Amino acid sequence: MTQSVGVIGPGAMGFGITQALLHAGFPVFVRDINPERNQVAASAGATVCASAAEVAARADIVVTVVVNAQQTREVCFGTSGDASSGIVAGMGRHANPRGCVLMCSTIAPEDTIAIAAQLSESGIMMIDAPISGGPVRAAAGTMSMMLAGPAEALSRCEKVLAAMSDKRFVVSHTAGDGSKMKLVNNLMAGINSVAAAEAFALGIKAGLDPHKIYQVVMASSGQSWMAGDRMQRILAGDRTVTAAVPIITKDVGLALDLAKSLHAPVPLGSQAHQVFQATLALGHAAEDDNAVIRFYQAITGIPLPDAAGETPR
Amino acid sequence: MTQSVGVIGPGAMGFGITQALLHAGFPVFVRDINPERNQVAASAGATVCASAAEVAARADIVVTVVVNAQQTREVCFGTSGDASSGIVAGMGRHANPRGCVLMCSTIAPEDTIAIAAQLSESGIMMIDAPISGGPVRAAAGTMSMMLAGPAEALSRCEKVLAAMSDKRFVVSHTAGDGSKMKLVNNLMAGINSVAAAEAFALGIKAGLDPHKIYQVVMASSGQSWMAGDRMQRILAGDRTVTAAVPIITKDVGLALDLAKSLHAPVPLGSQAHQVFQATLALGHAAEDDNAVIRFYQAITGIPLPDAAGETPR
Repeated sequence: MTQSVGVIGPGAMGFGITQALLHAGFPVFVRDINPERNQVAASAGATVCASAAEVAARADIVVTVVVNAQQTREVCFGTSGDASSGIVAGMGRHANPRGCVLMCSTIAPEDTIAIAAQLSESGIMMIDAPISGGPVRAAAGTMSMMLAGPAEALSRCEKVLAAMSDKRFVVSHTAGDGSKMKLVNNLMAGINSVAAAEAFALGIKAGLDPHKIYQVVMASSGQSWMAGDRMQRILAGDRTVTAAVPIITKDVGLALDLAKSLHAPVPLGSQAHQVFQATLALGHAAEDDNAVIRFYQAITGIPLPDAAGETPR
Repeated sequence: MTQSVGVIGPGAMGFGITQALLHAGFPVFVRDINPERNQVAASAGATVCASAAEVAARADIVVTVVVNAQQTREVCFGTSGDASSGIVAGMGRHANPRGCVLMCSTIAPEDTIAIAAQLSESGIMMIDAPISGGPVRAAAGTMSMMLAGPAEALSRCEKVLAAMSDKRFVVSHTAGDGSKMKLVNNLMAGINSVAAAEAFALGIKAGLDPHKIYQVVMASSGQSWMAGDRMQRILAGDRTVTAAVPIITKDVGLALDLAKSLHAPVPLGSQAHQVFQATLALGHAAEDDNAVIRFYQAITGIPLPDAAGETPR
């Protein structure tokens, strides 16, 4: 029997997930706080519900992909003073009382652990399931997923996970480990991204052609996935936003919080976070996170390629 | 007619270059300040010379691959008070007076520019030709090279360059630009390497399996060439030294010097350099530069895989 799936938060990533699930033939029930998002999901073929509780009542598996821990709590447990709108209340009305939540947001591991424990008290299994890859890959069902949850839940969600992603890593069976892994990855990604901006800015300041820098470093020991993805668009003068500055700033910030809780010094991560903060302070919040090079432009005066990919002299 | 080639400084990289050139059929003349290195090169088939001048007198093209700018000057111009031992003196005795120097050491761009100018006064062309790839690729003739020099010199050295490398990037025709490019690349490589150590250390401290971290980040946005190469050996407990800590520390330091000369702030590079310095201060100078994770081990107490690749609990 085909499972039905709920998607709570059909935003950029969540709408991609909705599309991938619909494409794979799953009935999809959605709920967003933004009515426009619900409409977009409905026109793609999803059924809009009035609350997270209704989604949970109608779906076998509920994917949550909201912005932060606070929203995840509200989606799961309702707002303070009114638990009836949350997943727990909805799953209580479910034919199969042992529901399953796929928690895809990047939040602090301690929040993940607490939410999983509270869901478990109501007999609901949760998979800590951070996602990676951006909206395009989400829609194609080719995201990467880091998974931490009970073996039984992983098995029950197998088909849904396969429809959402083409690379799945079972980190452990303990909620929180998925979130930790995501933060470790994004800490590296964030630092590598700032490193690329800083090194390109130095090279440009020293008179090198940024296109040559790209060609050389991508074939040499300076290569990183972030340098390849982010700098390519800078060089083309392409201002498309694939992930905005506040997202990576939040993720690196969460990695710093994790480090702080463990008394683990992270000198490079701290410095990279400062650079992202400065990028925000300079007014680039609505831009792609490769705008970090505009911080270096601001402090060095370097020229950057324009929309035609030409570097002004 | 087959060109003859000189290699001054047949050390780790220089001996690899010597092997690649001999393998390609070039007569090779070598000179090292360390007699053992000369012997090793001789047993591989090279002819040992008594001085850089003798190398230059017998070779059409002279590759210099010594440690720093000071050694490069001595090799080119002799020691103070005795110019007779240097390349310039040797090339004066050459049948073809317009010799060519391939300067492969990573040194400060300002030194590269000054050395090229001084060689030029004696009618000797220099290619600023930093190399990348390590001794194994040097011996296989598959290094990467960043090239900046006169078109005529590039053309004359074409066969020798092809025997040394499989990826060649002509950065410009201006000496110094090769050195600048190398420093930009190595600045990124250095930061990415520290980023990997820092993020892995955080993940291990948070209880994640380092092998899982490797698997996830290498397939995700945290990927970098340095993380792949350096962390793989950490995870295997492999203490092979492919590039020792002082080399990357020197290269990142030279990038900081370049930045300083341009008044270009490099906050991440500065922080990464501090971490490499701390790694040296902790006594890891003779180890591979992936020993930077041992700095994080020292300040966090994390376990690291042993020689069997097992992580102690």
